[in-house]
Amino acid sequence: MDPRIRDHAEVLVDWSARIESGDDVVVSVAEGAHELAVAVAEKLGERGANVVTTYASDEVLRAYLRAHDAEFDFGAHELALYENADSVLFLGGGRNTFATADVPGETRQASDRASQPVREARMDTDWVSTVHPTRSLAQQAGMAYEEYQQFVYDAVCRDWEELADQMANMKEILDEGSEVRLVKGDNTDIRMSIEGRTAVNSAASVAYDSHNLPSGEVFTAPYDPEGEVFFDVPMTISGSRVRNVHLTFADGEVTDFTAESGEDALAEIFDTDDGARRLGELGIGMNRGIDRFTDNILFDEKMGDTIHLAVGRAYGSCLPEGESGNDSAVHVDMITDVSEESRMDVDGEVVQRNGVFRWEDGFEG
Amino acid sequence: MDPRIRDHAEVLVDWSARIESGDDVVVSVAEGAHELAVAVAEKLGERGANVVTTYASDEVLRAYLRAHDAEFDFGAHELALYENADSVLFLGGGRNTFATADVPGETRQASDRASQPVREARMDTDWVSTVHPTRSLAQQAGMAYEEYQQFVYDAVCRDWEELADQMANMKEILDEGSEVRLVKGDNTDIRMSIEGRTAVNSAASVAYDSHNLPSGEVFTAPYDPEGEVFFDVPMTISGSRVRNVHLTFADGEVTDFTAESGEDALAEIFDTDDGARRLGELGIGMNRGIDRFTDNILFDEKMGDTIHLAVGRAYGSCLPEGESGNDSAVHVDMITDVSEESRMDVDGEVVQRNGVFRWEDGFEG
Repeated sequence: MDPRIRDHAEVLVDWSARIESGDDVVVSVAEGAHELAVAVAEKLGERGANVVTTYASDEVLRAYLRAHDAEFDFGAHELALYENADSVLFLGGGRNTFATADVPGETRQASDRASQPVREARMDTDWVSTVHPTRSLAQQAGMAYEEYQQFVYDAVCRDWEELADQMANMKEILDEGSEVRLVKGDNTDIRMSIEGRTAVNSAASVAYDSHNLPSGEVFTAPYDPEGEVFFDVPMTISGSRVRNVHLTFADGEVTDFTAESGEDALAEIFDTDDGARRLGELGIGMNRGIDRFTDNILFDEKMGDTIHLAVGRAYGSCLPEGESGNDSAVHVDMITDVSEESRMDVDGEVVQRNGVFRWEDGFEG
Repeated sequence: MDPRIRDHAEVLVDWSARIESGDDVVVSVAEGAHELAVAVAEKLGERGANVVTTYASDEVLRAYLRAHDAEFDFGAHELALYENADSVLFLGGGRNTFATADVPGETRQASDRASQPVREARMDTDWVSTVHPTRSLAQQAGMAYEEYQQFVYDAVCRDWEELADQMANMKEILDEGSEVRLVKGDNTDIRMSIEGRTAVNSAASVAYDSHNLPSGEVFTAPYDPEGEVFFDVPMTISGSRVRNVHLTFADGEVTDFTAESGEDALAEIFDTDDGARRLGELGIGMNRGIDRFTDNILFDEKMGDTIHLAVGRAYGSCLPEGESGNDSAVHVDMITDVSEESRMDVDGEVVQRNGVFRWEDGFEG
């Protein structure tokens, strides 16, 4: 076995999920993730965890959903599995990113609605989501297979302790700050309030309330944005390619938007509900192991030299006890490259300029 | 998709497992059984069942077991899954029948002991075990891949209703009979009692208390055997090839045994416990869709023109209420070809001669 797969499994089991002897663990294995599943099983055996392995095949799911009359229920057995689990490890990596493309949207939504209790039980565990590099994901990224493998392992197999320390600086600044301003080129100048909100140091570990591997971002839940912002990183929304989005905010809401492509998909998002036109997240990408965009949000939003905003639902962990932040059925991230002609201020002080943070060498205040 | 895979799935879901709307079903998918899993998911979607798909990978299991310190527990989550399931469909078919060959026997036994409650919960459901034809199983059978596929579908996709009617004749004879005598060539003449025992019409359906697909045997729990019997069908016991076994029974126990090969493996079986030297099963193979031996007990023991005896544990469904039959940690089937020079009598009347049953054309009483 490629030794990098074992390294990946070790980071996942020990750093991310913090598995201990006697833990009841579910490992969800996508069609292409067999090898990572083997390495993870080895590590879970060493730790003395109890394991149930589920088969998360998109082709199996497609066959089931298309054949169903869409009057869905959820299984008591599935709920019982997750209600009794300590951790769930999602090993993504399929064989075709469009494997469920011909499942009617209403069928999928009906299934999602019915399985809400199961999903909540799963999210109540110490869950972690990662991907095994497959040829399908390499294709999505526009990369050769071996090139993509190295890309994934560079992002995943990091000194997370050291990165968590770096990110703690940013969390402190955001926790203490009241207003963020992002300026870039001639089409981005936006201010938003973060007063009273708590940032998450998303260090790829449940110990940091962070559930993605890789991670490497600090995010909070901003509100009352004013101004304009340009997102130059391409993305896929509901199967549509969306490029060069420009949003204008006034009184805390999107009042105008344009996109070079995918404007219809964007319009559909904004029409979902009231919360879909307000901000749900401000995230600062700090994982410099990720050095390019791969059309996969798990990686793109963590990349160093990027900042992302999401419209829609805010994360509860950023909100004061008892306060509900922006609510919406959607949460759509959009990313901007801040490596050039940009700066981020917190309460009038420059925190990041052209991708360099104020505690780093080469920072020009 | 090969239409035979859909036919297989339909027999499994409708005839064998009798799945109905709202049933909570676990589908266990071996490494090579992906295509059958897709077809089964489609059928389960049509029926409106709720599905959890588990990944039964031998390579994942091997990695886990070898890394473990062998102080096993079982997971509360796994127990909860099966305790809340109505049916479990095991889709076998791996990529290497020896995938767990280097797991120490003690580790496997310790794991089996610890997971006893989970296994019992699984056996309390309407479970059915089948296999998807893989190249690995074709190799085990000594057959070309396409040849093996046809072999499996001939065995599985039968008129089960009609075969169940045929087998009802044999069940009636065994239920009413007191003594079975099997005579073949010059090395088999054995008598055994079946008084008070109930035969199972194993028609590949939970409705017949039959949990294998294919099935097609009638079996009961004999006792007090006397005489000698020769098993000419090769088999694999604990990884050893065993051929041409000759057993002598006196006072209901094996008193002498020889084998052309694999005698040590056989000796180990007989040494397990007292029950390992007594009979646990008499089975009459009646599935004429199975026309050759493939070194796979799921098929071999169901083949038409064969009779098998098992030493070790008897099945509870053959025993009178409250009576415990032969008990043992093992249950090892051995098969004899009865197509020539053979006859089976029940209470002195010939029931089968040279493979032909007394209700069939060509029977010579």
